[in-house]
Amino acid sequence: MLTHLDEHGRARMVDVGEKPETHRVAIARGEVWMAPETMATIREGSLPKGDVLAAARIAGIMAAKRTPELIPLCHPLPLTRVLVDFALREPDEAHPLPWVEITAQVETVARTGVEMEALTAVTVAALTIYDMAKAMDRRMRLTNIRLIEKHGGKSGDLVLEP
Amino acid sequence: MLTHLDEHGRARMVDVGEKPETHRVAIARGEVWMAPETMATIREGSLPKGDVLAAARIAGIMAAKRTPELIPLCHPLPLTRVLVDFALREPDEAHPLPWVEITAQVETVARTGVEMEALTAVTVAALTIYDMAKAMDRRMRLTNIRLIEKHGGKSGDLVLEP
Amino acid sequence: MLTHLDEHGRARMVDVGEKPETHRVAIARGEVWMAPETMATIREGSLPKGDVLAAARIAGIMAAKRTPELIPLCHPLPLTRVLVDFALREPDEAHPLPWVEITAQVETVARTGVEMEALTAVTVAALTIYDMAKAMDRRMRLTNIRLIEKHGGKSGDLVLEP
Amino acid sequence: MLTHLDEHGRARMVDVGEKPETHRVAIARGEVWMAPETMATIREGSLPKGDVLAAARIAGIMAAKRTPELIPLCHPLPLTRVLVDFALREPDEAHPLPWVEITAQVETVARTGVEMEALTAVTVAALTIYDMAKAMDRRMRLTNIRLIEKHGGKSGDLVLEP
Amino acid sequence: MLTHLDEHGRARMVDVGEKPETHRVAIARGEVWMAPETMATIREGSLPKGDVLAAARIAGIMAAKRTPELIPLCHPLPLTRVLVDFALREPDEAHPLPWVEITAQVETVARTGVEMEALTAVTVAALTIYDMAKAMDRRMRLTNIRLIEKHGGKSGDLVLEP
Amino acid sequence: MLTHLDEHGRARMVDVGEKPETHRVAIARGEVWMAPETMATIREGSLPKGDVLAAARIAGIMAAKRTPELIPLCHPLPLTRVLVDFALREPDEAHPLPWVEITAQVETVARTGVEMEALTAVTVAALTIYDMAKAMDRRMRLTNIRLIEKHGGKSGDLVLEP
Repeated sequence: MLTHLDEHGRARMVDVGEKPETHRVAIARGEVWMAPETMATIREGSLPKGDVLAAARIAGIMAAKRTPELIPLCHPLPLTRVLVDFALREPDEAHPLPWVEITAQVETVARTGVEMEALTAVTVAALTIYDMAKAMDRRMRLTNIRLIEKHGGKSGDLVLEP
Repeated sequence: MLTHLDEHGRARMVDVGEKPETHRVAIARGEVWMAPETMATIREGSLPKGDVLAAARIAGIMAAKRTPELIPLCHPLPLTRVLVDFALREPDEAHPLPWVEITAQVETVARTGVEMEALTAVTVAALTIYDMAKAMDRRMRLTNIRLIEKHGGKSGDLVLEP
Repeated sequence: MLTHLDEHGRARMVDVGEKPETHRVAIARGEVWMAPETMATIREGSLPKGDVLAAARIAGIMAAKRTPELIPLCHPLPLTRVLVDFALREPDEAHPLPWVEITAQVETVARTGVEMEALTAVTVAALTIYDMAKAMDRRMRLTNIRLIEKHGGKSGDLVLEP
Repeated sequence: MLTHLDEHGRARMVDVGEKPETHRVAIARGEVWMAPETMATIREGSLPKGDVLAAARIAGIMAAKRTPELIPLCHPLPLTRVLVDFALREPDEAHPLPWVEITAQVETVARTGVEMEALTAVTVAALTIYDMAKAMDRRMRLTNIRLIEKHGGKSGDLVLEP
Repeated sequence: MLTHLDEHGRARMVDVGEKPETHRVAIARGEVWMAPETMATIREGSLPKGDVLAAARIAGIMAAKRTPELIPLCHPLPLTRVLVDFALREPDEAHPLPWVEITAQVETVARTGVEMEALTAVTVAALTIYDMAKAMDRRMRLTNIRLIEKHGGKSGDLVLEP
Repeated sequence: MLTHLDEHGRARMVDVGEKPETHRVAIARGEVWMAPETMATIREGSLPKGDVLAAARIAGIMAAKRTPELIPLCHPLPLTRVLVDFALREPDEAHPLPWVEITAQVETVARTGVEMEALTAVTVAALTIYDMAKAMDRRMRLTNIRLIEKHGGKSGDLVLEP
């Protein structure tokens, strides 16, 4: 059953008023695949004074805070911590192209979890990388964006990937 | 070269003041992979009066308009048209799981293109589907988000997929 | 006395820091009056897959969350629940025209109430209906928007209409 | 037909890219009904240094600019002028209670009209009055919010009230 | 050390989840210097019905609420009180020109302080005054914007100016 | 006369509909004064991979785009270019403390100018620097924020400082 729909299929912001305020953590991860030359340029842009990843990090952190404005049924939550980080990866078995790995960790002390905030941070950081490199590579793709870990709340700890 | 960085690697919103206002179109596409039971529930939620895809469509359209607030170096543009659509797909060779295909088309008459707006619409629609179904499936993933077509502007027509 | 003005008539966001966090509920209601053909079309648009009321519902829920950005002296509150619902009504003694009845219920656990959030949800849902039907009927009117119930807080329960 | 739904009943932001940019004006009006003591206090609050109507005016003007963020299918438009004004009225044949009359005029040079912007300005100004006076009168109501005039665009001049 | 950077110099929203919720107050102050004729006109505009300072006050209060959207690493906080006030000053030893003194006081019950909210309120109020008077005086300057007092939280009371 | 007030002293967004769209540029500048140790740390934080100034730059650029949401009577404008830059300065005759000089340049093709956007970019960049360094220095001040140059529009070129 979709908790965000009532018994008539109507969207609603579900009631979390009865849930206790607890410390909650969510970690999400995603990838931006790109041509080798694009990766080379991003690496350069990440050298001293380069702003590419710094801009994507800031965009991701700011987007986490705006999640309830973007996702219609998300509850507004007082985020207590947001981290966004990047790893520049070369092609491997699962990745035919170079890729940026983006990881976001979001925390709160609240009545509901912050999965959407972590996923939104990853996504907007990824879009920002796309934006900054799109003039040279319009074939980049944002892919494999998923939840990695979740702690706190009634459902307890959930670790989907090591 | 990354146009969004100056010669010192500093981020900037590039100058488009000299470019003419032309009609511009961008089409982006992406996927949300999910467990079979999740897909079954989404299908139900899309029956008469079901709000799942309607909510995701509205979220995507609204997010397209807010792209310049999310992506630091995007220019604010007067969008003239936004469409977001969905197809519910069963597993196939390239997809081990059922998936929702999301396509967004954005248009403007402006000095620069709307790729980021189309990608943002796809992404936020995908996050909204995730949000509405996450209580039953935290292993969904947003994947394969990319530009499909682009028309107008100096670089002319670009059709990356049929 | 207007609590939102100080003794010199200056606007201020009043101090709620001393008030305890309690569970609070507000229910507001309003109406959109329209021509019979407009109502007929809305009813159609609300048939399977029709997005009219779904869009208005989402807009109302999202607006509730943005109330403190719109209403200058409203406190930002962590909403725990938002519901928006519609009834399509035919003319009666008090209504010379067909009308959509919009009801919004908003809840929080906070130091002050959510009347403005409920009224804002009703209002923006009403504006969205107007927007979607305005090409065929520019004489629609939003009317009779008022608070129905309020629970929690020092002033206790208030039920203005059955 | 509802132009904001496609032939399958799906919401969309309609294409205005082909329409010419023309000067457009919309005037909307609405009312806030209130108890006599509330009106007396508002009148006082509007004496020298009183901020009640000033706050409502600013809120209405700012809301006009945010209309496309609130109303899902509204186009973003470069507003060229926004006026919001008030008249404090005593009861008469059509009004059993004292009332504030709110009028908003919005203009643009754009491809589509600004009715929603004018209606949003009236509505948020009305909500702001409600907010400032609600501690003394929770029975106020926002009523009779409608379009008064509209100029420019293909449909030409429309004057619904003198 | 800059707490907003991690050990690799990367921006982050610092963890405040472990800190207790306490009552916190911040007071900030700033100045807008202007030509004598500009001050004379502002004084006039502040006479009965004049909206200059009322508009600046509302803008400052609203901006305080939006601080976490503007300042990348600020935590979203449930503000419980916001005051913005003005004094119109004539030249003195430290001020070669007439000036508007702006003071903002912001309070919350939260895990971190509200200095940024108070400074943002002062700053946006100052920008609003500039905006309203700029047609007659483009040489105004915003100056001397600083924290005055801070109470609550681990660091305790801090009174920087009497 | 204050153009943003009508003849009754009421705030309004002035009519720019009749003005032609022209290329417009505004350059604003401001300063953040700080203790020597704070400046030393900022310099460090600006070494390779340091995000301090990158974060402030992104914040300033994003704030420029949101100016009409912050300043009540500002017109929404399609910015075509935004640059924000910093210089780290040591004490001199006019500055008893080390200071960061912030310069923002904003451009548009529109019916009115972008002074407020440039000033807002400077201001929010300055607030961001304050935020990032405030744990070590609460005596920083934002000062001397003013317009430097302005081009385009009826009033022509204005160069207030070399």
